Amino acid sequence: MDRSIASVSFEDRGYQFSDGVYEVFALHNCSLIDEVAHFERLFRSLKELSIEVPWNRSVIKVIIAEVIRRNRIEYGNVYLQITRGNANRTHEFPRILPKPSLVVVANRISYPIEKSIKGVSVRTLPDIRWGRADIKTISLLPNVLAKQKAVMDEFNEAWFVDTEGKVTEGASTNAWIVDNKGCLITRGLGKDILAGVTRNRVMKLARRDGFNILERGFTVEEAYSASEAFMTSTTAGVKPVIKIDDREIADRSPGKVTLRLLALYSEFLAIA
Amino acid sequence: MDRSIASVSFEDRGYQFSDGVYEVFALHNCSLIDEVAHFERLFRSLKELSIEVPWNRSVIKVIIAEVIRRNRIEYGNVYLQITRGNANRTHEFPRILPKPSLVVVANRISYPIEKSIKGVSVRTLPDIRWGRADIKTISLLPNVLAKQKAVMDEFNEAWFVDTEGKVTEGASTNAWIVDNKGCLITRGLGKDILAGVTRNRVMKLARRDGFNILERGFTVEEAYSASEAFMTSTTAGVKPVIKIDDREIADRSPGKVTLRLLALYSEFLAIA
Repeated sequence: MDRSIASVSFEDRGYQFSDGVYEVFALHNCSLIDEVAHFERLFRSLKELSIEVPWNRSVIKVIIAEVIRRNRIEYGNVYLQITRGNANRTHEFPRILPKPSLVVVANRISYPIEKSIKGVSVRTLPDIRWGRADIKTISLLPNVLAKQKAVMDEFNEAWFVDTEGKVTEGASTNAWIVDNKGCLITRGLGKDILAGVTRNRVMKLARRDGFNILERGFTVEEAYSASEAFMTSTTAGVKPVIKIDDREIADRSPGKVTLRLLALYSEFLAIA
Repeated sequence: MDRSIASVSFEDRGYQFSDGVYEVFALHNCSLIDEVAHFERLFRSLKELSIEVPWNRSVIKVIIAEVIRRNRIEYGNVYLQITRGNANRTHEFPRILPKPSLVVVANRISYPIEKSIKGVSVRTLPDIRWGRADIKTISLLPNVLAKQKAVMDEFNEAWFVDTEGKVTEGASTNAWIVDNKGCLITRGLGKDILAGVTRNRVMKLARRDGFNILERGFTVEEAYSASEAFMTSTTAGVKPVIKIDDREIADRSPGKVTLRLLALYSEFLAIA
């Protein structure tokens, strides 16, 4: 249906409780990038929330394909959201489980690689999110508020910092730094970060290209003095970070390592 | 409009980000109980999320009154939800601020005091919610999952426990214990609990009745060995707790202090 009239019940548990999950697939030259990984994460998120859906992967794939086809989109993304469905409001799951709600939207976007090359700025903020940032839920209010605070202060992204002073991840991206030996450093998987699909893809591409990768938390101080920094996400791809708080990184221009990873990722997209 | 067709856009930020707040007003004999306190909390929540609404308190009161009138409800509750409104999905606030969405629903409920007197059981669970439980937001997924876990294990409510082993609050109620001197103990206000309107009302009624109240965190161990325990909320009023995890409290029947508070609260409702 048309975007302007597509609606859900006010009693959708996604609306009253943020009781649901989502995925964003990049669409590149009519292909869903890393489709398998996104589906695996989607079904893991559903399992963590005990949401049982009546659609298997093939059914959802048909729906996504149809939404893309009707919108005639070649480059862009697909936003998919599944909630526990409509029910009278009680915190616990409804006794008679409703049919989950499924929303699929396709958006046309051109991916301007030039814009990525320019580099972005990040502001660090305390990570006050709940303890299960590994589940891709729509309970995103802390991310919204952090991103807004960053934007108000004229930064492009927020990086969350845990109580030990270590960066967890960005409000909608994974965070990386490059040390002076050219090693890539990004936080290891756990309950405090999302297992980014692009994070994983870049990791594979980088390893194959001979890079060393350390999966460990890094402090804000380490990030300030890193050779380079960058972020990854489905929407952003690989994005150079050239400023963290009031510190300039890599002389305010994308570094060699980041540019190499950006090239590898563009190559990967081109053959996808 | 009719409940079955009342809907919101799939791009309502409440649906995609849990970017909104809510209140539940108890309706007793056609009166909204502690209306002023609920409105104050509502406007505080909106301020904390920087949601600017085009409606002042009087306008919202007129809307609520009309919803109650059309549904001809004398006893029940009013659920009110305000979100940042509809916009294309970006984590940061939309550049052109949308009109916030307002949902008002009136529900008919009889308040069976007998049921309250029976007493309920609570299960303690780690508090893994975000750092701003003081804001009454719709970002309630951790509360949903905790309540569901409690219900699955045949408990009525979940009590969250912080990293120091102290109870913060329930999934949808405030938590109280009574020590062996008849003192009421409930956690002090802060970012880790909601400033319950019923919590505050019971506090006033109890003080006026000569009770001592200690506003401090209490440990799970303290709760296990408390003389009595109870919970408060707009929907539950005052509810005796007669079991915490596998421990029976007050010999599995509502204690004297709790029954006194229940009587005071019923009296307060009667004259409201």
